Amino acid sequence: MTVSAPKPLEKAVLCQVGIVVKNADRMAKKLSDVTGLEVPATIITDDYEKAHTQFRGAPSPAKAKLIIFNMGQVAIEIIEPIGGPSTWREFLETRGEGVHHIAFTVADAARAADELSAKGIPTVQSGVFEGGKYIYVDGEKELHVILELLEFESR
Amino acid sequence: MTVSAPKPLEKAVLCQVGIVVKNADRMAKKLSDVTGLEVPATIITDDYEKAHTQFRGAPSPAKAKLIIFNMGQVAIEIIEPIGGPSTWREFLETRGEGVHHIAFTVADAARAADELSAKGIPTVQSGVFEGGKYIYVDGEKELHVILELLEFESR
Repeated sequence: MTVSAPKPLEKAVLCQVGIVVKNADRMAKKLSDVTGLEVPATIITDDYEKAHTQFRGAPSPAKAKLIIFNMGQVAIEIIEPIGGPSTWREFLETRGEGVHHIAFTVADAARAADELSAKGIPTVQSGVFEGGKYIYVDGEKELHVILELLEFESR
Repeated sequence: MTVSAPKPLEKAVLCQVGIVVKNADRMAKKLSDVTGLEVPATIITDDYEKAHTQFRGAPSPAKAKLIIFNMGQVAIEIIEPIGGPSTWREFLETRGEGVHHIAFTVADAARAADELSAKGIPTVQSGVFEGGKYIYVDGEKELHVILELLEFESR
């Protein structure tokens, strides 16, 4: 009997490209200038009490300023780290400004993260937000990019 | 009378994320393993005679091995530089393996590139391929990512 290995990103939808920057407002203004899209509202991520952020296995007061442009099928998420240890700040410090992650919508983020971990792609950060939860997995070694698993609450 | 400034990426469709790597086959195998998608056929970019590659204002024998996974709405393009000066090799040498560009489908790549250049986002490489043409513009300073403008021939 053959048991087929899990495919954690089977039918997962690539929904977002996340770019870490030093100044989110500046980048948003420029992106608006080239796309003609209005600058969307700024989001400040929740405090630990609400976000329950875990970074590298420990609770973190990680915070970021987010500006998310809906580009039709895919969103561009501009991320400015503003406090606490996080994958965003770590990326900025080690690699500089640039594409931090590509995000996939999945049905069960925890299961996908477990399966990816078994394939050498470990969890690096997780948290919850209004309407869902996210898990970043470190695909830099195997896929040369960090992945974000996004699980939205069904309504 | 007000003349509105051009919006070179107005209604442009974000269609691809390009990742530069040292070993395209290895990454393709891993991406197949996590997505369950079959590894697509490998593409070797055309020689100069056909591709007419221009890199930083001069003809270049730039070549790459490409493996393009269609992820539904968006493709992941795995790029392994295999010869000649190119934006791919330059990125690999200066930033290492990682996300090289995000690509947009546009109606007129040359016009979009001219308009982007006027906004501080200059052309870095261009060429033609079976069915269309491409222009990479260096958005690293203004948008912290290289953009690819893809213009497909209408059929």
